[in-house]
Amino acid sequence: MKSQGIDALILAPGTDLFYLTGFEHGHAMERLLALVLRSDGQAQWIVPAMNVPQVEKRAQPGEKIRGWNDTEWYLAPLKEALEGIKSVAFDEEARAGFLLDLMEVARPQRLLPSSAIMRPMRIRKDPEEITMLRHAARQVDDTIAEAVSFCAAGRTEAQVDDFLRAALLKKDPESAVAFTIIASGENSALPHHETAKRVLSRGDVVILDYGTRGSVPVGKELSHIYGYQSDITVTCCIGQPADPDVRKVYEIVYRAQQAAIGAVRPGARCEDIDAAARDVIESAGYGQNFMHRTGHGLGLSGHEPPYLRTGNKELLEEGMVFSIEPGVYLPGRFGVRLEIIATVTSSGVDLINRPSAPELLTS
Amino acid sequence: MKSQGIDALILAPGTDLFYLTGFEHGHAMERLLALVLRSDGQAQWIVPAMNVPQVEKRAQPGEKIRGWNDTEWYLAPLKEALEGIKSVAFDEEARAGFLLDLMEVARPQRLLPSSAIMRPMRIRKDPEEITMLRHAARQVDDTIAEAVSFCAAGRTEAQVDDFLRAALLKKDPESAVAFTIIASGENSALPHHETAKRVLSRGDVVILDYGTRGSVPVGKELSHIYGYQSDITVTCCIGQPADPDVRKVYEIVYRAQQAAIGAVRPGARCEDIDAAARDVIESAGYGQNFMHRTGHGLGLSGHEPPYLRTGNKELLEEGMVFSIEPGVYLPGRFGVRLEIIATVTSSGVDLINRPSAPELLTS
Repeated sequence: MKSQGIDALILAPGTDLFYLTGFEHGHAMERLLALVLRSDGQAQWIVPAMNVPQVEKRAQPGEKIRGWNDTEWYLAPLKEALEGIKSVAFDEEARAGFLLDLMEVARPQRLLPSSAIMRPMRIRKDPEEITMLRHAARQVDDTIAEAVSFCAAGRTEAQVDDFLRAALLKKDPESAVAFTIIASGENSALPHHETAKRVLSRGDVVILDYGTRGSVPVGKELSHIYGYQSDITVTCCIGQPADPDVRKVYEIVYRAQQAAIGAVRPGARCEDIDAAARDVIESAGYGQNFMHRTGHGLGLSGHEPPYLRTGNKELLEEGMVFSIEPGVYLPGRFGVRLEIIATVTSSGVDLINRPSAPELLTS
Repeated sequence: MKSQGIDALILAPGTDLFYLTGFEHGHAMERLLALVLRSDGQAQWIVPAMNVPQVEKRAQPGEKIRGWNDTEWYLAPLKEALEGIKSVAFDEEARAGFLLDLMEVARPQRLLPSSAIMRPMRIRKDPEEITMLRHAARQVDDTIAEAVSFCAAGRTEAQVDDFLRAALLKKDPESAVAFTIIASGENSALPHHETAKRVLSRGDVVILDYGTRGSVPVGKELSHIYGYQSDITVTCCIGQPADPDVRKVYEIVYRAQQAAIGAVRPGARCEDIDAAARDVIESAGYGQNFMHRTGHGLGLSGHEPPYLRTGNKELLEEGMVFSIEPGVYLPGRFGVRLEIIATVTSSGVDLINRPSAPELLTS
């Protein structure tokens, strides 16, 4: 903070605050609960009165806890805590309403996102974090076979979704399902399809994109809101594909993924990994149909730095963890996406998931 | 917007955007998807390329859709959209990171929360909204008896939680569980307890605070991320209470709730409703143990205006909907909270839920 001239870092309940303190809270909403860390070493929590006992469990000795009740509201405590503060790094995943309030009461001269401080700490995962990421990855890997088998003609996307969620929780009852996308037939051409009631037919491509969130030991307890995540995408088909181009496109996307994995090493640029995948897809004539980046970082957040996209010249470092997920989407027809999670080792790459299937899975 | 001198209202996926357009999207995260509404009547969507087909389904004729891809990123489209804009109302529930980006690229002279525009539209519910709120309320009301019966010695809070969630979804498979708090024994003295693995014992007080979110018809589909919510709190006991003060405190909280309900009418101040409940609890000597406001608005958001708290001099109007939920919390011992949802009618009050039980429920 000192080297960047930041006087205070302000974090609300979320992954940054969890990373630093182990504190999590699912009911904060419109009431500000924040940790104010100052570059002079002082730390203060601003806390709704009713949540003070929960904060006391996680606060460090010497950290002030300033409770406020619904009559006082949080504007005065926030103003007090920011006395003399000129530059602030603010939790970028928190509600914008809190930032507007902060600007109103404290009028800092300089405002930055919290990532200015948090990113260097979070972007390189330590062995303990990698272990938790591997645990979550195993859970999704181990569910692929049964999820693919369940994709049968006559079932709906929503039914596949229910089955998948139950299967995931059975593998690890301490985990949570972070998200699911079940996209069948022409819906598979939408990378961010919202699972619907479409009925699956023979010959349909089905994209299963899903992830979980494990628990993290915090003192003698396990976290239940935040944890290290998994994220995988499998493309399968109900029997033989109805569209004659499915297998060809699958093979191109698989080769693109292999090329991207092969490009990962410390010192490579983020955009190089994207380019490795994109070159394969462009050479095959589908450049226009790969309209998203090749990958995103994964950790406590489902999407976090580093982002593997054109123009990102950041260098990969040992311990970074990210998805490698090229895709080709043919509107009105089908899509193929293959996603696994990889980590940068001292000399190259290691996969956190098992590799994607080299050939289209069928059920 | 014109009367307030606001040039542009910027909304990201969330309840405000859903209210105006029916658009919902569960995977937006760090990629900006926004609707920019200008006071000159122009409207523009800024959309990740891969989400353009989803936005096209909800955009109105004449609204421009500006796609951007991961190579371009959203800063340039955002800057273009805000050309000439001096004052902005920004989605207060969106990520603060988007607001920081906006300030960087557009440097508006004036920034306000989106509620400056949206609040007058959303705060008074129309008959259709009330019908959806009643539907959700019936779902939680109809689950009370079985949830209370399930609270038996030997079961954990987490088991009660699982049972309750399943029971709620069975009543309405199109709904989602918005949140649950299961707080037993000494945990019931924490208004925002996070459900844990504590084992229930005979004589324990158990607070069940839970809510659901229904579906809203949008065109020919049903919404699946946003909908009108329910929120209820029941306080029960496993057999006869172990603490001799439970029944006395229950009766005080019940009277406080009745007093608050009795104070609701168009033209009453929000703080009057809070005071009606607080007076009863203070007179009984437990003023210090009622450390939260009496209620919050309910609609598409679980907590929204109006807030029934000391100092809020806003006047109640017909169609406002809010919780009435006084509580008394005795640290290390137990808590009692009773919550129902009420609406302001042309002449007084109507309950959206069935009334709270006048006497402690036991299982």
